Amino acid sequence: MVARAGIVVTGTEVLTGRVTDRNGPWLAEQLRVGGVDVGTVLVVGDRPEDLRAALGFLGSLGMDLVITTGGLGPTADDLTAEVVGDVQGRPSAVDPELERQIGAIVERLMTRRGWRADPEATAAGTRKQAMVPAGATVLPPVGTAPGLVVPPVDGRDGPVVVVLPGPPPELQGMWPAALADPAVRAALAGRSELRQETVRLWGTLESQLAATLRDHDAELTGLEITTCLRDGELEIVTRYGPDGQPAYDRLVGVLREEHGEQLFSTGPTVDDLVAGALAERGLTVATGESCTSGLLVARLTERAGSSAWVLGGIASYANSAKEALVGVPAGMLAEHGAVSTQVAAALAEGARARFGADVGVGITGVAGPGGGSPSKPVGTVHLCAVGPEGRQARSVVLPGSRSAVRQRSVTLAMQMLRQLLLGGPPA
Amino acid sequence: MVARAGIVVTGTEVLTGRVTDRNGPWLAEQLRVGGVDVGTVLVVGDRPEDLRAALGFLGSLGMDLVITTGGLGPTADDLTAEVVGDVQGRPSAVDPELERQIGAIVERLMTRRGWRADPEATAAGTRKQAMVPAGATVLPPVGTAPGLVVPPVDGRDGPVVVVLPGPPPELQGMWPAALADPAVRAALAGRSELRQETVRLWGTLESQLAATLRDHDAELTGLEITTCLRDGELEIVTRYGPDGQPAYDRLVGVLREEHGEQLFSTGPTVDDLVAGALAERGLTVATGESCTSGLLVARLTERAGSSAWVLGGIASYANSAKEALVGVPAGMLAEHGAVSTQVAAALAEGARARFGADVGVGITGVAGPGGGSPSKPVGTVHLCAVGPEGRQARSVVLPGSRSAVRQRSVTLAMQMLRQLLLGGPPA
Repeated sequence: MVARAGIVVTGTEVLTGRVTDRNGPWLAEQLRVGGVDVGTVLVVGDRPEDLRAALGFLGSLGMDLVITTGGLGPTADDLTAEVVGDVQGRPSAVDPELERQIGAIVERLMTRRGWRADPEATAAGTRKQAMVPAGATVLPPVGTAPGLVVPPVDGRDGPVVVVLPGPPPELQGMWPAALADPAVRAALAGRSELRQETVRLWGTLESQLAATLRDHDAELTGLEITTCLRDGELEIVTRYGPDGQPAYDRLVGVLREEHGEQLFSTGPTVDDLVAGALAERGLTVATGESCTSGLLVARLTERAGSSAWVLGGIASYANSAKEALVGVPAGMLAEHGAVSTQVAAALAEGARARFGADVGVGITGVAGPGGGSPSKPVGTVHLCAVGPEGRQARSVVLPGSRSAVRQRSVTLAMQMLRQLLLGGPPA
Repeated sequence: MVARAGIVVTGTEVLTGRVTDRNGPWLAEQLRVGGVDVGTVLVVGDRPEDLRAALGFLGSLGMDLVITTGGLGPTADDLTAEVVGDVQGRPSAVDPELERQIGAIVERLMTRRGWRADPEATAAGTRKQAMVPAGATVLPPVGTAPGLVVPPVDGRDGPVVVVLPGPPPELQGMWPAALADPAVRAALAGRSELRQETVRLWGTLESQLAATLRDHDAELTGLEITTCLRDGELEIVTRYGPDGQPAYDRLVGVLREEHGEQLFSTGPTVDDLVAGALAERGLTVATGESCTSGLLVARLTERAGSSAWVLGGIASYANSAKEALVGVPAGMLAEHGAVSTQVAAALAEGARARFGADVGVGITGVAGPGGGSPSKPVGTVHLCAVGPEGRQARSVVLPGSRSAVRQRSVTLAMQMLRQLLLGGPPA
């Protein structure tokens, strides 16, 4: 028996996309690892009736646990604690000790930034943030907002509701305390492990994979398989209980037999593979980027410790910068244009030489929406990766928006680095 | 009377955060501009019962329109069309003309990429994607998947359901056809305009703003105000009907009176302001980045046409690159360390000189999680922006993860550029 949880993300800023929700996915993953099944995440605006309906819906699905994020701030649109208290049959009141604690935090924050705090304003906001439903457990603030664990009032059925703040660092910092709460532990008791594994293909479409999965359907019972094509990479994610291991091993066997030429990973991402290969072989890398303008070197340095293998990159957006800073010959730019296989190679070699790196990557293209021509339409991108043992070059016309073209170019460059360093499916 | 819509985003990959949903926010914004209120977005995994429950929930809220995204592909986990047909009382069958159309598209895609297509596999996937609920309208494919408009079967109450594909370019390409459908138009008839405006502050916390809003509560009736602190910027978003204009004007007046020193925009983002100032004054910019390693120059070039003012940037992750490529003196690095106000200034000046730009920005810091020391803890970041009329310098200790420190450093740099070019609240 798997325990079940639902998540309610609150905030008009999330609903309308001004802020991308990172809490729903993070919580879903934490819960999955802990053996808790999450099938539904609701995003609602800052309106009490919408939050109330969302809580009612998850209750009607028979969830063991519901987690809310956001709506714990000092402004009037922050209403989560009160609504949750209401739904669980527990009216709220100010907790004076909590009030003092929050007041001290706000004052310290404002002072540290050198901002002026109005004591009356601070007091009113603090009072609001210190409202606690009767009988709820307070989770100590990581930022300014406390969290709450609110079980249904005695005699009432329904999920335990955990109320967490919206800023991801605060939410993540508070998570261990939430999991350790006795009411939460009781709600999740008796859960069994839920495994998740990922196989990654490069070089095929979902329809081809679908046929393989259909042909072997009978051998793959008990697996929940989902596939997703992203930036040209086909991700196959499988979830299964402890009994599903033999079926999962069979799935990996089937994929190796039928899609061996496209299978590049049974776990790690392309970023993991590239970082691992550079670190293990003691190689360094540098980039010369035009249309992606720093996105590749930013991605290569997302990882902690990447300074051991990333020397840097030059975003040479202007032609003058391609010449002066990366050493692309002026004659080459004049003859072939900035968007050409020749310039991609010169950017890769120039970056390699200027930074003194073992591996160089060059990217040049037309990200759009303007700047296209009949011979070089929007989406035309030339890439080159040069390493100690050879080189990779690709020329493509990528579909989609400016942002999509830039993003897919960076992923293609990562696949080229993967093949240059490790072999496997051609990028 | 405002028409109401709900959105259901399907896909285990979205639920678990492997893919960030861009469709929910995009659709919510399109609908808002069209005067349709969206209060709830549900994200569900690829399980028929979860999708069915989500559709039932939105129906129970009395929505006029429900939009689903995703689950239209050829694999077995793509089940949206069938479940929606079921819920609306319309059993599905293969549409032979649509089947031919999709088959041709898949073949063309595989050929263009030079990938091998198995004709049998293609046929099976195509048959699945060509299943249409009886009496539904087909929206022609933009990628391989068609969309659907599925009203409830005659005699049944409930929202019209519009079924759209998951890939954002396909969904966005199909949206005009969905809006033009007669059943969709009928569902949204009689809608009234819903305005949305944004005021942006830099240099205060939500608690201070909350007090202002409380003090003036009586003058601000009819406004739906939400506030959000992001990377240090406080965003105040207000939604209101046509009658709310005087109250909104009053709100802007109140904010100017009470928070004039922090208010830097009544609309445009900091990115808009910086791009506009550079373009209007004919100035160029270049960056020298260490801990943010290309993120700032990537952000500056997100905008179409930015090649007119962005010359490029050097991500000088290694000290050797700071010396050789940006001209930071070796003695300065030895004396003050790479993370110092001196090196931030040298990066800004070096980038400016090497690219021949009017404005240079330098960033150096400890993004963490390793590399901190008692005198330079993780989160220590020094920034400098140098322009024709002067300079801005800031030194901060930012909280949060490696990614948060890098992100906030970039936003702080944008605010410094804004102040350098336009004045207003200090960054």
